[in-house]
Amino acid sequence: MTKVPSLKLASGFDMPVVGFGIWKVPRETCAETVYNAIKLGYRHFDGAWDYTNSAEAGQGVRKAIADGLVKREELFITSKLWNNYHKREHALQQAKLELEAWGLDYLDLFLIHFPIALEFIPFEEIRWPCFWSDKEQTKVTPLAKVPISETWKALEEIVQTPENPSGFIKSIGVSNFHTQLLYDLLSYAKIPPSVLQIEHHPYLTQPELIQMAQENNIAVTGYSTFGPLSFLELNNPQAKNAKPLFEVDIVKNIAEKYGKTPGQVLLRWCTQRNIIVIPKSNNVDRLKQNLECCSFDLTEDELKQISTLDLGLRFNCPNTLQRPIRIFT
Amino acid sequence: MTKVPSLKLASGFDMPVVGFGIWKVPRETCAETVYNAIKLGYRHFDGAWDYTNSAEAGQGVRKAIADGLVKREELFITSKLWNNYHKREHALQQAKLELEAWGLDYLDLFLIHFPIALEFIPFEEIRWPCFWSDKEQTKVTPLAKVPISETWKALEEIVQTPENPSGFIKSIGVSNFHTQLLYDLLSYAKIPPSVLQIEHHPYLTQPELIQMAQENNIAVTGYSTFGPLSFLELNNPQAKNAKPLFEVDIVKNIAEKYGKTPGQVLLRWCTQRNIIVIPKSNNVDRLKQNLECCSFDLTEDELKQISTLDLGLRFNCPNTLQRPIRIFT
Repeated sequence: MTKVPSLKLASGFDMPVVGFGIWKVPRETCAETVYNAIKLGYRHFDGAWDYTNSAEAGQGVRKAIADGLVKREELFITSKLWNNYHKREHALQQAKLELEAWGLDYLDLFLIHFPIALEFIPFEEIRWPCFWSDKEQTKVTPLAKVPISETWKALEEIVQTPENPSGFIKSIGVSNFHTQLLYDLLSYAKIPPSVLQIEHHPYLTQPELIQMAQENNIAVTGYSTFGPLSFLELNNPQAKNAKPLFEVDIVKNIAEKYGKTPGQVLLRWCTQRNIIVIPKSNNVDRLKQNLECCSFDLTEDELKQISTLDLGLRFNCPNTLQRPIRIFT
Repeated sequence: MTKVPSLKLASGFDMPVVGFGIWKVPRETCAETVYNAIKLGYRHFDGAWDYTNSAEAGQGVRKAIADGLVKREELFITSKLWNNYHKREHALQQAKLELEAWGLDYLDLFLIHFPIALEFIPFEEIRWPCFWSDKEQTKVTPLAKVPISETWKALEEIVQTPENPSGFIKSIGVSNFHTQLLYDLLSYAKIPPSVLQIEHHPYLTQPELIQMAQENNIAVTGYSTFGPLSFLELNNPQAKNAKPLFEVDIVKNIAEKYGKTPGQVLLRWCTQRNIIVIPKSNNVDRLKQNLECCSFDLTEDELKQISTLDLGLRFNCPNTLQRPIRIFT
């Protein structure tokens, strides 16, 4: 079975550099999808409260463990804190609910999903898209006055350590943070962030952000490695207008040279620069290919060629109804 | 004399939309320059600890008041907190020293200059460029672990209010902050920021950042309105390679249409969108022209035409010797 390399996190734990991102995996098929992915060799799964499929993913994981396919300690499970729960007591509660949804004793990584706090909505009332608005999508959920420092301290409370054995999270981190907020976080964090998860593909390379994170011992996970492809099913107009990365000559030519798929080239472009990837696929062949993306090396020049495709083109911008959340500037 | 419009700040005070930025005004001529600017009609001066000319600027101001050219309450004086003094006690001390340098009873606005804290260097030891390094420029000054919230709270302590009559600052704000850190600041600020000062010119328009600030009642001051021009004397290589904005057709044609200078067009492009400007000049004619930049209006279409020149080209990136401070991503 394919051996996927790992990165050593600031927390001391190892994180496999290729995972399976379960964003947009339908609830109906999620348990089976996760089970089959484990069968294929996946050991790292990236979930979130926002994806609303943690319970189903957890079923798949528990069945795989029960069937002897894998041991819990061989798996790396990520979840995330959603924007409506940044207040200490809500963060603690959502993390606990997420752990229960997965049905596990602990989670490996827990991230602040976005650097923006929205007003609390009772847990039983919400499902996407009403995080950002009421159910009728007529009233925008207001921002909440919760400092990131309060949320981070809550996350520190649930980290499992010898001094805190009731903690149920191994490592903590953030997602969609930029450098100014990361520098600030590093100034007060008692437990430093292990991971920064960001949108990262050849159309949005963000080299300074990645360098800043890596030089501060924060491992970087890139999401949406295939660029516009991930956003077509969301009817994102920019994604529809962008040229698919699999059809870009630079990518295609490199793929041909190595006898690999364009997808594998894009994933390798990340992992070779120590960026963790979490692709998704519904197709078994592609799932296998994605997992095997570390089986070849690109030249320095090829890595750079792919990086020249940068357009500063971001697809994942959280918006409320009429009011964008302007966090990416 | 030219009447310059003002903006009402969140603090309730009025800020003239055209000021004189004293960055790079030599100490030898600064008192006279400021005195003459007041004579010409300038009422707003933008200084900073980092510019190392506050004492001389203060001389000019005090002479103008003594000579009856202006009253203190007609002036608007800004200064800024430097990176080495983010800790509470140092921030309080540097603000006090800066007030004493100006030789005034109060300052109108005090900003956090950059969202990055560097290790403290005793006040008597430092002058640029040893803020970023030791005097021999061989050892980089390390970052200091001071949260922005600590620095902001220190600034709140020196704001003059009925409850805090010994405060000596009228309004407080920040500079070079991006939106994520602004949202965070807004979540805990007891006194909200009145002003955000940022690099802003047609090659770096940052519309989302400006919109976010303005929709949160934070007035925006743009520095380096003339783009590369401000950075030529610093031997900035990007500035040398960029086409001077005064020679760009769009700017030149609009200037010709209104019988104004390209500089006036660039300033009006800002002020008409409620962005405060702080140009500098050593030439009396240009000083006058800059002050008179609100005497005409551009059409909506002309404002947009100028904005299309955006290249995301930033000239002011703080760097240590070999280690860039990666705050702009």
